[in-house]
Amino acid sequence: MTIMRCELDGKLAVITMTNQAKRNVLSEAMIGGIIAGLEQASRARARTVILRAEPGCTVWSAGHDVSELPAAHRDPLGWGDPLRVVIRAIEEFQAPVIALIEGGVWGGACEMALACDMVVATPNSTFALTPAKLGIPYNISGLLTFMNVTGIHVVREMAFTARPVPAERAQALGIVNHLVEPSGITEFCVGIARDIEKLAPLAIAVMKEEMRVLASAHSITPRMFERVQGLRRRVYDSQDYQEGVKAFQEKRPPSFTGE
Amino acid sequence: MTIMRCELDGKLAVITMTNQAKRNVLSEAMIGGIIAGLEQASRARARTVILRAEPGCTVWSAGHDVSELPAAHRDPLGWGDPLRVVIRAIEEFQAPVIALIEGGVWGGACEMALACDMVVATPNSTFALTPAKLGIPYNISGLLTFMNVTGIHVVREMAFTARPVPAERAQALGIVNHLVEPSGITEFCVGIARDIEKLAPLAIAVMKEEMRVLASAHSITPRMFERVQGLRRRVYDSQDYQEGVKAFQEKRPPSFTGE
Amino acid sequence: MTIMRCELDGKLAVITMTNQAKRNVLSEAMIGGIIAGLEQASRARARTVILRAEPGCTVWSAGHDVSELPAAHRDPLGWGDPLRVVIRAIEEFQAPVIALIEGGVWGGACEMALACDMVVATPNSTFALTPAKLGIPYNISGLLTFMNVTGIHVVREMAFTARPVPAERAQALGIVNHLVEPSGITEFCVGIARDIEKLAPLAIAVMKEEMRVLASAHSITPRMFERVQGLRRRVYDSQDYQEGVKAFQEKRPPSFTGE
Amino acid sequence: MTIMRCELDGKLAVITMTNQAKRNVLSEAMIGGIIAGLEQASRARARTVILRAEPGCTVWSAGHDVSELPAAHRDPLGWGDPLRVVIRAIEEFQAPVIALIEGGVWGGACEMALACDMVVATPNSTFALTPAKLGIPYNISGLLTFMNVTGIHVVREMAFTARPVPAERAQALGIVNHLVEPSGITEFCVGIARDIEKLAPLAIAVMKEEMRVLASAHSITPRMFERVQGLRRRVYDSQDYQEGVKAFQEKRPPSFTGE
Amino acid sequence: MTIMRCELDGKLAVITMTNQAKRNVLSEAMIGGIIAGLEQASRARARTVILRAEPGCTVWSAGHDVSELPAAHRDPLGWGDPLRVVIRAIEEFQAPVIALIEGGVWGGACEMALACDMVVATPNSTFALTPAKLGIPYNISGLLTFMNVTGIHVVREMAFTARPVPAERAQALGIVNHLVEPSGITEFCVGIARDIEKLAPLAIAVMKEEMRVLASAHSITPRMFERVQGLRRRVYDSQDYQEGVKAFQEKRPPSFTGE
Amino acid sequence: MTIMRCELDGKLAVITMTNQAKRNVLSEAMIGGIIAGLEQASRARARTVILRAEPGCTVWSAGHDVSELPAAHRDPLGWGDPLRVVIRAIEEFQAPVIALIEGGVWGGACEMALACDMVVATPNSTFALTPAKLGIPYNISGLLTFMNVTGIHVVREMAFTARPVPAERAQALGIVNHLVEPSGITEFCVGIARDIEKLAPLAIAVMKEEMRVLASAHSITPRMFERVQGLRRRVYDSQDYQEGVKAFQEKRPPSFTGE
Ligand code: NI
Ligand code: NI
Ligand code: NI
Repeated sequence: MTIMRCELDGKLAVITMTNQAKRNVLSEAMIGGIIAGLEQASRARARTVILRAEPGCTVWSAGHDVSELPAAHRDPLGWGDPLRVVIRAIEEFQAPVIALIEGGVWGGACEMALACDMVVATPNSTFALTPAKLGIPYNISGLLTFMNVTGIHVVREMAFTARPVPAERAQALGIVNHLVEPSGITEFCVGIARDIEKLAPLAIAVMKEEMRVLASAHSITPRMFERVQGLRRRVYDSQDYQEGVKAFQEKRPPSFTGE
Repeated sequence: MTIMRCELDGKLAVITMTNQAKRNVLSEAMIGGIIAGLEQASRARARTVILRAEPGCTVWSAGHDVSELPAAHRDPLGWGDPLRVVIRAIEEFQAPVIALIEGGVWGGACEMALACDMVVATPNSTFALTPAKLGIPYNISGLLTFMNVTGIHVVREMAFTARPVPAERAQALGIVNHLVEPSGITEFCVGIARDIEKLAPLAIAVMKEEMRVLASAHSITPRMFERVQGLRRRVYDSQDYQEGVKAFQEKRPPSFTGE
Repeated sequence: MTIMRCELDGKLAVITMTNQAKRNVLSEAMIGGIIAGLEQASRARARTVILRAEPGCTVWSAGHDVSELPAAHRDPLGWGDPLRVVIRAIEEFQAPVIALIEGGVWGGACEMALACDMVVATPNSTFALTPAKLGIPYNISGLLTFMNVTGIHVVREMAFTARPVPAERAQALGIVNHLVEPSGITEFCVGIARDIEKLAPLAIAVMKEEMRVLASAHSITPRMFERVQGLRRRVYDSQDYQEGVKAFQEKRPPSFTGE
Repeated sequence: MTIMRCELDGKLAVITMTNQAKRNVLSEAMIGGIIAGLEQASRARARTVILRAEPGCTVWSAGHDVSELPAAHRDPLGWGDPLRVVIRAIEEFQAPVIALIEGGVWGGACEMALACDMVVATPNSTFALTPAKLGIPYNISGLLTFMNVTGIHVVREMAFTARPVPAERAQALGIVNHLVEPSGITEFCVGIARDIEKLAPLAIAVMKEEMRVLASAHSITPRMFERVQGLRRRVYDSQDYQEGVKAFQEKRPPSFTGE
Repeated sequence: MTIMRCELDGKLAVITMTNQAKRNVLSEAMIGGIIAGLEQASRARARTVILRAEPGCTVWSAGHDVSELPAAHRDPLGWGDPLRVVIRAIEEFQAPVIALIEGGVWGGACEMALACDMVVATPNSTFALTPAKLGIPYNISGLLTFMNVTGIHVVREMAFTARPVPAERAQALGIVNHLVEPSGITEFCVGIARDIEKLAPLAIAVMKEEMRVLASAHSITPRMFERVQGLRRRVYDSQDYQEGVKAFQEKRPPSFTGE
Repeated sequence: MTIMRCELDGKLAVITMTNQAKRNVLSEAMIGGIIAGLEQASRARARTVILRAEPGCTVWSAGHDVSELPAAHRDPLGWGDPLRVVIRAIEEFQAPVIALIEGGVWGGACEMALACDMVVATPNSTFALTPAKLGIPYNISGLLTFMNVTGIHVVREMAFTARPVPAERAQALGIVNHLVEPSGITEFCVGIARDIEKLAPLAIAVMKEEMRVLASAHSITPRMFERVQGLRRRVYDSQDYQEGVKAFQEKRPPSFTGE
């Protein structure tokens, strides 16, 4: 049983997460599959990529595979960790990547969806930023992904309450580009892809790269960054971090103490 | 007669401005009170703070206490001046601060509300950025508070026209997180606080700090900053600055000449 | 036959593009005219500028004059090129500039409209970012103009699909400040100007400059910038760049190959 | 009696401070004269400027005219203040400016000399950074002038001890380009000017501007800058600031208390 | 037996490391002592601090206490680790700190000495940057300390060869402010302190803080920083890191494999 | 006849430019050879690279191959141009690169030498930065290479006068790490390499990368960069640029007019 597939349709590549049994959790295997799909698309010189789950799914992706999180005392969101790798692969792909969303988008999957160039969603979709449920200190470039998409009040609400944002509200806030009913969403995204195919690929690639550079251009001093890393280390050294992961695995609500 | 009060309800602290007679003007005393409330909340390890005026107020806060503005030739928005101090106290508070808004929010109070992590407002609320009414040169980090919340066209409209933005429009633009009728707004905010209490406090604190750092990360050269300070000095050295303050105190429209 | 006119109405300057026959294309002459208009407004110490096309037009401006684009191997968006010059003239004008929009706004004209401090538009207006139709590598500060106005998903959709954004959606996203019917839009903008005139001009000027500085404050390393310039050079050295311009002039769809 | 003169010798402009009676103090008049000299040199398209005192002087310049310093509560080193203006005029001059130094260089004059592109000095010259003698909070871009010339240990020694650095040590540290005996220093500098005249003026101008930009590229956040301004304000609000100026005028040692 | 002492002599505080038996290794206890000394000096409002070893020592400080380094898989130079804490304490001390150096200065002690405001050394002193001997990935703000003191060729030589730099060469390069024979070095440093005491303390404090800010103002993007952290993690996860520490403890040369 | 060779001696790679007939001009072929040498060294996991000319040469390298410079209207120092490519290859090489210098180092070769991690030179070597002789606008990251090595007065003298800096002065200024007689220089550099081989390669690699990042961390705004590019374009569009190249090829002094 595979957990994803990549199909080429002319100049369009469609990467589909198919591991519904595990709610398309972003395991190393799943992320490896998405990256392999992007590489296949790149070799085929795809002009657009659609990243999606299977039609009719209720969870687009549940985010981090909690069973793969490192034990305490170790940054769970380091440069080489799977979520960071796939975010960069999407950002650096030389053509537009469209997130086609149906169902719930949770945690790291929420950043993965928002790191795509555009988001098209069905009305029943929801977006939730959930590290505070597990006690995970999100990394700074990860939060920047959210801050480039919409205003800081909305990002803070998502990060601090972990409440899901419904698709309609997400669209009003510029997070979702278009709301489309499930029956028409595939066709809608293919329509975007067909438009992109008529345009100049080099111009699109360079504008994507320029925007990636600009979006990243919120520089901070080494001192400030090391301070933030120090604060993050205190979190992944904390008992709460261990409690968060353990409670998740035991399917019970966590009991956090701030220590 | 006190001008504010701070109540602790379990892990929730509620800071209420009660100086309706003076429209909750941000005098040194009021700001000292808010800061004292935040410190009390911090000692109690509050997980959420709600900053509000009394139910039923028509003005949430009128902003700067004009009678306390420095005379000409002196930066009215320096590092140690009350408004700047309270903005930083809110930004640096280790847990989410929710602005519960009812009525008009003017001038410096508008920045104070927007510096909160989330804004929940009643439909009749309005937000106005009014330094151009007084001839005050707003400071650069103050304007950045606004630019991190919403797009630049909206911020410019607010700054250059001083027109109030109604709550509904503010919500559509991401300035206000949620619109709630007066009868339900307290309960709504308490509901958010209850959700926050279930999550990991260290993870929330570090994400708040990371976003504070990112939001501030619009660095400029010393030269450019000193140039802007020079432009600002010309404003608070101007006759218009004196006229703005005087006209306000004499309750008449100012007559500005650009000199 | 002139292609623009500038009228002074008290403290309000109205710059009108009148070259409807050529869809107000941003030729050197047109841009020279707009800049002359701004200079005239500056000398008259205008407190507001309205930049508009003639009432009833179907195209506000078609953007770049393709016939004036440099041949291949030459950056079409250099510092001294007309579009860049007019963008800076608007940004540096010492008082608010309102874009009064009716009809289609295409390509470089889209950036010119968004570089204005506020945008007021009729419901039938549309905004399209079209360099990918011609194979032009947009410059990095040009893309930053868009990113300061709204979220990155919307900007990417505009840049990568070249699809027009209708005025109503543009308003919801903070791109357009106000939607007004054609019959009332002039009066509406004059109303804003009248409000601005009552406020302190120095305070407005300094806040405009502060926001210009903050909006530009997305600094990048010399190395990264030179890398982006290198990528852009590959685009304007490409066959596609020549094909894009040629197809436009021959009024046929371009045939891009990515080379 | 004039206090400076500007002579053109072909493509070389020589600006000489001649107010030895007042030790070439940088009064508004003196700085106005230097700027006028630079403008004259610019109109003549001078390829090199030499900035010097009269041969044989014992004090090249004594720096700030203390009698012109603002009273307390006012930044003495604002954007429009004379020292800042002349520093920028030198940095922005489109051709190399050579400081020809003989004698003592004190305080603001030390920054003026170091802001020149090259420094040629006689062996008896000395360089002293003296604001701590007066209690003046130097401005941040002013200190950056020093930090771009040599290492931070040397700059701190100069700033914190106010001790003069002899020319020989200054040369070893890269502050002085060349040490030349008084009898030959004029000819030596003219020799440099003659070499510059053979080279491409546009290439030199653009490299000077690039280095000016790079030297200034130590950006800081608005928040950090405002904090530094706040610290500086406490200094020019202090009693020590007033005592420093008063003691200087009374020609007695100051008695500082740190308050 | 104590390992350090702090003496107050009027407005001068002298902190002396006295653990010659262990070559003044920077154990947590030693660093705690230095910080306590700085706090004592601060309470006494000391105008200068001298940081020194006992007269006649052959090793000023041997740097990191290798026995306290974290096991593999853990950043040995995190925000809260002792070396980073003492570096910041010196940088943030409100008055000048003079490193009085006699003997060898190794590893982390080399950064501690260079983080002082000035360095005065005896001719037999040497400075060595030795993390490559142990396989430790130095942190980015630590390397910046070196880069602010002298040119990059010298810093790279120190970091890549671990060879000691003799005091005379260090002085020529601006690393050492003054070379003084052991017999006179104490008096020499006290002489500097006496000069400092005559100057304005607030002006010195603010200039020190401004230079600290400027020296730190080499900002990088979150992405770039996280990439560097990822590279550093690979080093402290490596076998070589463990080999380096082990070999040091077994007093044998390490055998590095690059894995 | 080859123009360079690369030899491996254990963990040391020696790249020798052997095209003395053409004074080791940095033609595309020569640079291609150096890059190939670096790649070979990388595959062999060399721990040190020595970049040198043949013993006894009088010109280490004459810099740019003027015959390969682009015609006017084209940036001669773009991202993909040979000099920029080799600079980055040296900076990104994962181990130290030592420039072993004998003879004159001119123009682009001067940056290539200074981009090496260390410079060891014979006493008769000289370093000259010569773009102003040809009328070439040096690029901004190229000038930054110089500014990271030594103070700005020295860099400006080199750039504006094109005068060669003798090795002894270069050493005093930190440009050259060590001066060694020709007879011993090879052995001296091999000695450094042997020391490097004993140290931890991963620690060295990460420190090299951290310093590369810090050295590049002088970020500027897109606007400022585009302005500088515009100034540079005016230079390579100028008649002087063409005159400089032509005069060089005709072996006569150029006659520059500033146009
Ligand atoms: Ni931003
Ligand atoms: Ni930004
Ligand atoms: Ni720097």
